[in-house]
Amino acid sequence: MHLGAWLGPLCRGLRRPVGRTPQLVRGALSRRLVLSSRRRIPEFNSFVSRTNTCGELRSSHLGQEVTLCGWIQYRRQNIFLVLRDFHGLVQVIIPQDESSASVKKILCEAPLESVVKVSGTVISRPPGQENPTMPTGEIEIKVKTAELLNACKKLPFEMKDFVKKTEALRLQYRYLDLRSSQMQYNLRLRSEVVMKMREYLCNLHGFVDIETPTLFKRTPGGAKEFLVPSREPGKFYSLPQSPQQFKQLLMVGGLDRYFQVARCYRDEGSKPDRQPEFTQIDIEMSFVDQMGVQSLIEGLLHYSWPSDKDPVVTPFPSMTFAEALSSYGTDKPDTRFGMKIVDVSNVFRKTEIRFLQDALSKPQGTAKAICVPEGVKHIKRKDIESIKQFAADQFNQEVLPIFLKASRNWNSPVAKLVTEDQRLELIRLMEIQEEDVVLLTAGEHKKTCSLLGKLRLQCADLLETKGMVLRDPAQFSFLWVVDFPLFLPKEESPTELESAHHPFTAPHPSDLHLLYTEPEKVRSQHYDLVLNGSEIGGGSIRIHDAQLQQYILATLLKEDVKLLSHLLQALDHGAPPHGGIALGLDRLMCLITGAPSIRDVIAFPKSFRGHDLMSSAPDSVPVEELRPYHIQVSWPTEAEAQKDSLNQPHQQES
Amino acid sequence: MHLGAWLGPLCRGLRRPVGRTPQLVRGALSRRLVLSSRRRIPEFNSFVSRTNTCGELRSSHLGQEVTLCGWIQYRRQNIFLVLRDFHGLVQVIIPQDESSASVKKILCEAPLESVVKVSGTVISRPPGQENPTMPTGEIEIKVKTAELLNACKKLPFEMKDFVKKTEALRLQYRYLDLRSSQMQYNLRLRSEVVMKMREYLCNLHGFVDIETPTLFKRTPGGAKEFLVPSREPGKFYSLPQSPQQFKQLLMVGGLDRYFQVARCYRDEGSKPDRQPEFTQIDIEMSFVDQMGVQSLIEGLLHYSWPSDKDPVVTPFPSMTFAEALSSYGTDKPDTRFGMKIVDVSNVFRKTEIRFLQDALSKPQGTAKAICVPEGVKHIKRKDIESIKQFAADQFNQEVLPIFLKASRNWNSPVAKLVTEDQRLELIRLMEIQEEDVVLLTAGEHKKTCSLLGKLRLQCADLLETKGMVLRDPAQFSFLWVVDFPLFLPKEESPTELESAHHPFTAPHPSDLHLLYTEPEKVRSQHYDLVLNGSEIGGGSIRIHDAQLQQYILATLLKEDVKLLSHLLQALDHGAPPHGGIALGLDRLMCLITGAPSIRDVIAFPKSFRGHDLMSSAPDSVPVEELRPYHIQVSWPTEAEAQKDSLNQPHQQES
Repeated sequence: MHLGAWLGPLCRGLRRPVGRTPQLVRGALSRRLVLSSRRRIPEFNSFVSRTNTCGELRSSHLGQEVTLCGWIQYRRQNIFLVLRDFHGLVQVIIPQDESSASVKKILCEAPLESVVKVSGTVISRPPGQENPTMPTGEIEIKVKTAELLNACKKLPFEMKDFVKKTEALRLQYRYLDLRSSQMQYNLRLRSEVVMKMREYLCNLHGFVDIETPTLFKRTPGGAKEFLVPSREPGKFYSLPQSPQQFKQLLMVGGLDRYFQVARCYRDEGSKPDRQPEFTQIDIEMSFVDQMGVQSLIEGLLHYSWPSDKDPVVTPFPSMTFAEALSSYGTDKPDTRFGMKIVDVSNVFRKTEIRFLQDALSKPQGTAKAICVPEGVKHIKRKDIESIKQFAADQFNQEVLPIFLKASRNWNSPVAKLVTEDQRLELIRLMEIQEEDVVLLTAGEHKKTCSLLGKLRLQCADLLETKGMVLRDPAQFSFLWVVDFPLFLPKEESPTELESAHHPFTAPHPSDLHLLYTEPEKVRSQHYDLVLNGSEIGGGSIRIHDAQLQQYILATLLKEDVKLLSHLLQALDHGAPPHGGIALGLDRLMCLITGAPSIRDVIAFPKSFRGHDLMSSAPDSVPVEELRPYHIQVSWPTEAEAQKDSLNQPHQQES
Repeated sequence: MHLGAWLGPLCRGLRRPVGRTPQLVRGALSRRLVLSSRRRIPEFNSFVSRTNTCGELRSSHLGQEVTLCGWIQYRRQNIFLVLRDFHGLVQVIIPQDESSASVKKILCEAPLESVVKVSGTVISRPPGQENPTMPTGEIEIKVKTAELLNACKKLPFEMKDFVKKTEALRLQYRYLDLRSSQMQYNLRLRSEVVMKMREYLCNLHGFVDIETPTLFKRTPGGAKEFLVPSREPGKFYSLPQSPQQFKQLLMVGGLDRYFQVARCYRDEGSKPDRQPEFTQIDIEMSFVDQMGVQSLIEGLLHYSWPSDKDPVVTPFPSMTFAEALSSYGTDKPDTRFGMKIVDVSNVFRKTEIRFLQDALSKPQGTAKAICVPEGVKHIKRKDIESIKQFAADQFNQEVLPIFLKASRNWNSPVAKLVTEDQRLELIRLMEIQEEDVVLLTAGEHKKTCSLLGKLRLQCADLLETKGMVLRDPAQFSFLWVVDFPLFLPKEESPTELESAHHPFTAPHPSDLHLLYTEPEKVRSQHYDLVLNGSEIGGGSIRIHDAQLQQYILATLLKEDVKLLSHLLQALDHGAPPHGGIALGLDRLMCLITGAPSIRDVIAFPKSFRGHDLMSSAPDSVPVEELRPYHIQVSWPTEAEAQKDSLNQPHQQES
């Protein structure tokens, strides 16, 4: 069997990402490596003992004496081996002559994944034995000397991308998992994207990279902030959820254009796909308005976008919060596909369908629907059952499915109750095609929209499992969502208000007068950036007027302003108008790489329960090490411990 | 009085840094601003409502309609005002005609430090009224419209660089202090230097910027690590002092060339000029040796060095630890000046000076001296007294001063005991000049060197207060210190060993055999980078052999290897040889800017007691917020509290 025959799949294996669109990303990956090395050509071999990386050798290197360092990826019949480094694979010929016995011994006896250094000559492969699927497939290395740098002991799993590992095992042996082509790709791309963002901000637009403290004062109501005991009895720092206060103070300090790739902390216990520490691209500017921040971010993403993806098209479309809710049932619409929510109240003003009648008889009652394309083919009875169940359980709502068969016969339990006029009007309003299914619900505006928003995504999932492509993974649909409400009723006490985002958000200038009369109606100057249905950023124009800030904090939100006195004072001491934004870097990179979880774009992530499975953090600490911090552990009673464990999700560490 | 007359000093005032070499830095600062804007020309006016910055306007802008935003720095007789932004100052003419009454009112009534937006025309100043000391001194703005963006309330201190503030006041109102030209310069230069470092590492040499967690597991003996309680009873994260373990694991993971501008944490209570959180340029490479890391760092500093300073000359000189100790009495010699320690034991083998006799009669006894140039002129009797007192108090050592008068008569209490031969030999050996003073001591090698090392610096301080220039502040003397011992005797138990740096440091290859026989004699592959007598970085080649690491941890250091089992295992799974370094960014920027404290190169530093004086962190936390973390405060008894307060330095917050 010839080498090319098994190196081909091996090489493809190495380069196959495990993300959600392997077939699309694979081609793009090798294209990208070429493009990016053309763009910058960093010198990978400076300061080290190798002359070349394994992945860079080509026919143009023929005849060159090279020294390579890498891991033994594969060996066959003591004749060939494949050496791997971060840059790629290269085929090495093990010398068979007597005089090279020691070299042969080293290369044949070293276990796979051992680290070796080899020197030799780049030669071309015998005719017909080239491997066109391998970037180094035209050449091989005729080895002269070899050195075993470190032998590898038995591994906990096979180091092949196609060998499936549980995520717990991958996290426990993260240093092995990092050798996978997918993790190498993700982390290197992350570094590149951030570097380009820095170039854009610093070098092109005069932003100043400023580090702000992470040992800070607890913010009012900061229930998600980790505490850090200090050596003063009873005094604690806290790890802030964002540099919000600091970046505003920098504006007051005349720093004008600030950014930071900021580590932030949020203690949310066990939320899936969240991390206790995360990173945001944190930006703040003086003398800017909402459009200014949006243009900056559009330019930033355009500039830093990976070159193997289609370029980002700017400006991004914009949608009000109200429109997002009524058309998509969410404040983060996935605009890659249609199936928008349509208000069909007027169609059913006169109807015999009971739940529609009931809903529309109420003052705020509406009837809404979404149209699932080709649903007749793909949505089965059991799907309908689970949709209805979901609507009843989560929203206490009824859903009526209407199957539109090619015969134009409406197939639905209540279809006979829909008049011909209603049918035609529905078809016109919703642009219904043959074979579509309409899901109809009725009730209060927000609730019906939220329900249909969820059903829209569930049906898209369903259709995609059947082979339809609704959400092209190569497509990146950015969207600004704007005009959020400034306040929301408090969940636990709906007559009181809380900030929809944070209390420093400026009200919309057109709604200023409402602050003193109907504050719940005031829109804010907050904006969210949504990508393919995920919120990847948010920001606002801030309040720069101390009096207004005081009124909102004290009078409307009933906060203890003493805790923020430094900020209020700063606003009174010549604060410029300012605004900013923060992009969630982990989420953004997750979407760009198509990774299944943000853990795949973080070098050493925590499990969903906040554990580092490699080092087993958090860990116990001897009592004497707690003493300098004047704290002791309050061990829960057995009853409490039991209660706690019931509240914890009973899942294995993923 | 003409405007130029008072604008001149004002402008110089704005640009005068408060660092230790105002006269040198001042010229450099304006030169740098020109150079750096030529180099990159970032666009400062994108996305905002101004057309120009205050500082950028020149004669070339004459006739242009401009819109500026800035702070009112100064106003005179309601005729002129000076507008300031981060970029500089510009003179604005307040319109006096009737039709501009509203503009005049705004500009005349707004308190200083209010934020305004003005639009108008760039005109040239009347002949003879130009201000050559002001970059915008050839032009002024004829205002057409003005808008008060935010009025400034009464300030806690005057916003002028020459008004001296206590550091406590500066920290309490940090957002005001940040408006000073010195803080603007420091923070902007820091951002620029770091950006250039990133370009060098990422774009030129293929390093990958990887973020590592700060919520980690407590390291063995990590007494300086802050704790972070988790929601699991008795389990704590800790904030690591460096990403050491992670960066080594990245090498095992094949990431090959890692760097990070890493936030690190160290709880050292109240140490002056230390911060509980600090930043290091953290670097690790595979397949590298000591020379490789050193060349990388030399290239890095050369590339990122501010353009207003003399270029960094590479390679840096190198000195062994032993040599640094014997010539400078420290492992971080300031090589900008001489006054090296000289061993004069052989001169005094036969002497009647009692303490020399005593010392040299012992097997390890030595006599050492430094020569203070022109000391006769500058060192007074009271200086000698305090030198002797210091030597006695801190080192239990005697010091003999010998004044070498022009008459060649040795003036010293014991001079008559020094023979003519000894005199001549001393002069030859130490290259003594007329008017020099020799400080002589004797005893054990390390102790005498350490003492003379301190005296060398004290005398340099003394001579500089008298006007001599020993340490040119424009000079940057880099030095590698190498060949440190791998282990040191434990202070509390000198028969046991502890790591001189950290337990992952590789032994010097030539000393490997000594590990098993005389480990205290083994040198390490650790290297320190010293700049002008301050340690600004340190690193090492690491151990990549699991067996060796296990032997050092368990057998030599008696550490609990279970806590590091993940690292030992990683070394066994194909760890490449690797090494790295970390540069202390705060200290480096402090030296580059000539700032008196690292607090001057950090936007929001803590006081020396670890307090944020602006927000008053750390702070009390309600008991119910401690509950989720299963901790409670152990309030000290009155007696304990008293004892604690005695151990605290009784200084005011600086």
